[in-house]
Amino acid sequence: MTLSLTAVGLGIIVLGAGLGIGKLAFGAMEAMARQPEISSKIQTAMIIAAALIEGLALFAIVVALLKG
Amino acid sequence: MTLSLTAVGLGIIVLGAGLGIGKLAFGAMEAMARQPEISSKIQTAMIIAAALIEGLALFAIVVALLKG
Amino acid sequence: MTLSLTAVGLGIIVLGAGLGIGKLAFGAMEAMARQPEISSKIQTAMIIAAALIEGLALFAIVVALLKG
Repeated sequence: MTLSLTAVGLGIIVLGAGLGIGKLAFGAMEAMARQPEISSKIQTAMIIAAALIEGLALFAIVVALLKG
Repeated sequence: MTLSLTAVGLGIIVLGAGLGIGKLAFGAMEAMARQPEISSKIQTAMIIAAALIEGLALFAIVVALLKG
Repeated sequence: MTLSLTAVGLGIIVLGAGLGIGKLAFGAMEAMARQPEISSKIQTAMIIAAALIEGLALFAIVVALLKG
């Protein structure tokens, strides 16, 4: 019997990253609506924060690929 | 006996990506309604953030396909 | 004994996609109600975001079909 939980782990990785990036981008959109003049600065900050979550999740997916 | 949890993992991947993109797009729509003048900038930011989640989820689905 | 969780995974896929598209379309409707002049731009943004979730869910369903 082989039972692989790799896909379930991948699911939880994307669940966390998706909820996190979704929440911070939601805040970024609302901030742009309130202060349209600095929307480019808000976008830069949004990308920095999202990239931090993205990097973690990508590394975790690669480790899941290697170790199963 | 074989018990595959691949489909469950795929489900959790799409759950995370769907909720995340849904939340940020919801914020983008509300931001467009409040600041219609910058709706194209908001749409750009929405697509950037959604693409980050999309890329992670696609990569995770491919790894789930490879590793089962 | 065979116990297939494929249908459960498919259910979670549609749960995530349905909630995500539902939430963003809800926001689009409210935005259209507040700014009827830009309703065509809001509809474009809504279709882009919904198509991202839709594509992921379709791909995940195909992988679930292949891997069981």
